[in-house]
Amino acid sequence: MALTQARTMPGVMELLPLDQIAFQRMLDTIRGNFERFGFLPIETPVMEFSDVLLTKQGGETERQVYFVQSTGALEKSVAGVPELALRFDLTVPLARYVAEHEHDLNFPFRRYQIQRVYRGERAQRGRFREFYQCDIDVIGKDALSIRYDAEIPAVIYSVFRDLNIGPFTIQLNNRKLMRGFFESQGIGDAERQAHALREVDKLDKRGADYVRDTLMGEGFGLTVDAAKRILDFVQVRSHGHADALDKLDALGGGNATLAEGVAELTQTLELIRAFGVPESHYAINLSIARGLDYYTGTVYETTLNEHPQIGSICSGGRYENLASNYTKSHLPGVGISIGATRLFYQLREAGLLGTAASTVKVLVTQMDEAHLPRYLELANELRSAGIATEVVLEGGKLGKQFKYADRAGIRFVLVLGSDEIAKGTVTVKDLRKQDQFEVPRTELVKTLRVELEQVEAMPA
Amino acid sequence: MALTQARTMPGVMELLPLDQIAFQRMLDTIRGNFERFGFLPIETPVMEFSDVLLTKQGGETERQVYFVQSTGALEKSVAGVPELALRFDLTVPLARYVAEHEHDLNFPFRRYQIQRVYRGERAQRGRFREFYQCDIDVIGKDALSIRYDAEIPAVIYSVFRDLNIGPFTIQLNNRKLMRGFFESQGIGDAERQAHALREVDKLDKRGADYVRDTLMGEGFGLTVDAAKRILDFVQVRSHGHADALDKLDALGGGNATLAEGVAELTQTLELIRAFGVPESHYAINLSIARGLDYYTGTVYETTLNEHPQIGSICSGGRYENLASNYTKSHLPGVGISIGATRLFYQLREAGLLGTAASTVKVLVTQMDEAHLPRYLELANELRSAGIATEVVLEGGKLGKQFKYADRAGIRFVLVLGSDEIAKGTVTVKDLRKQDQFEVPRTELVKTLRVELEQVEAMPA
Repeated sequence: MALTQARTMPGVMELLPLDQIAFQRMLDTIRGNFERFGFLPIETPVMEFSDVLLTKQGGETERQVYFVQSTGALEKSVAGVPELALRFDLTVPLARYVAEHEHDLNFPFRRYQIQRVYRGERAQRGRFREFYQCDIDVIGKDALSIRYDAEIPAVIYSVFRDLNIGPFTIQLNNRKLMRGFFESQGIGDAERQAHALREVDKLDKRGADYVRDTLMGEGFGLTVDAAKRILDFVQVRSHGHADALDKLDALGGGNATLAEGVAELTQTLELIRAFGVPESHYAINLSIARGLDYYTGTVYETTLNEHPQIGSICSGGRYENLASNYTKSHLPGVGISIGATRLFYQLREAGLLGTAASTVKVLVTQMDEAHLPRYLELANELRSAGIATEVVLEGGKLGKQFKYADRAGIRFVLVLGSDEIAKGTVTVKDLRKQDQFEVPRTELVKTLRVELEQVEAMPA
Repeated sequence: MALTQARTMPGVMELLPLDQIAFQRMLDTIRGNFERFGFLPIETPVMEFSDVLLTKQGGETERQVYFVQSTGALEKSVAGVPELALRFDLTVPLARYVAEHEHDLNFPFRRYQIQRVYRGERAQRGRFREFYQCDIDVIGKDALSIRYDAEIPAVIYSVFRDLNIGPFTIQLNNRKLMRGFFESQGIGDAERQAHALREVDKLDKRGADYVRDTLMGEGFGLTVDAAKRILDFVQVRSHGHADALDKLDALGGGNATLAEGVAELTQTLELIRAFGVPESHYAINLSIARGLDYYTGTVYETTLNEHPQIGSICSGGRYENLASNYTKSHLPGVGISIGATRLFYQLREAGLLGTAASTVKVLVTQMDEAHLPRYLELANELRSAGIATEVVLEGGKLGKQFKYADRAGIRFVLVLGSDEIAKGTVTVKDLRKQDQFEVPRTELVKTLRVELEQVEAMPA
């Protein structure tokens, strides 16, 4: 029979087991922190009705959507568009979920969601068609206190501290502040503001000259001074808490929107400190606009201080109304998203991920087939103590069994031969420490537990 | 603007947060046990190339497959079949994975995989188009000891003991035993055997009379005696370890295949006992054939003793060659699959799932807005101790805050007013025990930890 070539589609991340373990640990750390801050899990189906999913989106998004059809033709096409499509983010499904289950949820509704999303992008290095998003959102009914805007950075801080991937900065801005300032500089129209914000968003990529020229060009026609003031504005960065407050204060209250933005961001910063986030880990960055149009207040980006090239590893903000396409209820919210697949990929590329230890901690070797029942008993005891254990069931040379453990990243190898059985001991080979010792059978679990607790830490 | 109705497609299970927590606990219990037995995680993309996914399958499966296409037409159709499709199980992706990464894997390769699969089934109650499968497999290179066939039931036992959903029985059979016996009764041809096995598989649903009539009918033409012997054979069940061995022994060695089957199943049973599985939890059931054609040795089903109507909650077996469509390597294996979505649904229908406690353990109320920084500090302390804590950030009446905690399934509510601050205490309301007490601030974490450890158990 002709063989089919075993291969995956481009643009997906498929990992070997040890890498998968490292990735799983990352997700577990994220999830653990989300839960510690009182966020509740939800999961939504990977497929949504196309009309629900594409309610708002225009052509750009639609071209990136994967449509789904079974050959059984259970699903109809509606006006040429297949009835089902794969979610491209977790925000639209959240909006649909909250609208659908509104009367069964408690508000403020604090949800986390860690699932894969799909985009039919042209394949290129570092771009994924399938990737994990790890989202938290707090959704209020009718209103949601600005205080929640300060809780989000506390979660971000906790997550990235525990991921242990080096120093990072949570960068904050507020869209009102930006909008107000643009207004005061003569860009009052909402559409022109949006356009200007998109141009300003290119500051890091295209540089200050490009942005100034655009602002003075045909679409905007600003004076040199106004363009300069806007450029100065978006280049404001703070270093430390007091500096951030000073810089906000210096912006003054040119108009009501600007004043509101300054007040909100000031209050947010004060509360972030009260949440226990060290001032070394947050700053204002008045260039942050975020692409999505629906952010209306606080916006966040997070960057690794020593790896700016990676870009934002966690972004989000405050929005006015989550689910206006599905319900008349007014549902303001604030949230962030971590693109875990891309983050993992980037960290690996940057050499920031060490070699993961296997989830399997112990290999019970088979020195003598006749003692197999003892090996199984030993493994049972370890497993009952919560120590992940594999038993060699197929004999073979002991050296080969050691080699297997080494290649598989298993740290402890146990040997139990007639000698040990007579003495009531077990020989333990510690492959990480390149060490070997004998312990009384009765002390084994305790000894391994102590050793494992000492060194098991985060992947990095 | 006209609203779009927020709704999900039929045939998917979307849960409210407390149910999602119960479901997540079920998956965590399964995963924890898989890891304790030394299985390694992998994840594969939800989409595979259609030619890879549908290598072997005929029309039946193809009709149930969801095909995927982006409107950007990045993916081509090959002879009218879209290039991509959603996986319909985890076995084909495993075969593809092992063939693709063969040289980077250690054999025996022990993998677990917990992901969703997709089938374009006609929607009906209890049938899902999207559902979780939790699979383990051990894959050998060239050969795989029969001993691994005994380890699988040890994992099954451990999983369902920990899920705590009532007494269950792991039922075993061996396809060789069945094949040999059928041969000895005059059904020697492989195709007729497969046909007969499919008929025998209907024993529970259609009854003995139907199966006997079929075996004596046109397709088979067996004598009354032969049909009776086959029916007697497939109705063999054991009660206890010794009984199972006796009944296997009584089958004798009518031919080589039968003798091999008896020997394999006997050895498997002996090792299952050595693995520490209580004899009350396994039995032979010679009617088990399993639908899939590729099982060649041991086959498993697991049923809940008190809920036979649920059917098998965990099934699998031994197969001769995992990935013959993709590689010339000979890769025998043994594995099982738990359909977690269906299981959860069935357990809930049968009333076997209690109300889950929230992942959020503590709500810090906002008695006095002025003390907000203290509330945040308190929450920080609890979170650092690993206690999932939510803080009320938006004030309001205390009674309303209690009600929120109650509805959300949060057990402990903390009150910290000026009185408590003066005394250095915290008032704790235990909503589960309907109890209220005051503890010194310094004792709070310890007290809550003790309380939480006492009662946090499995969902059931």
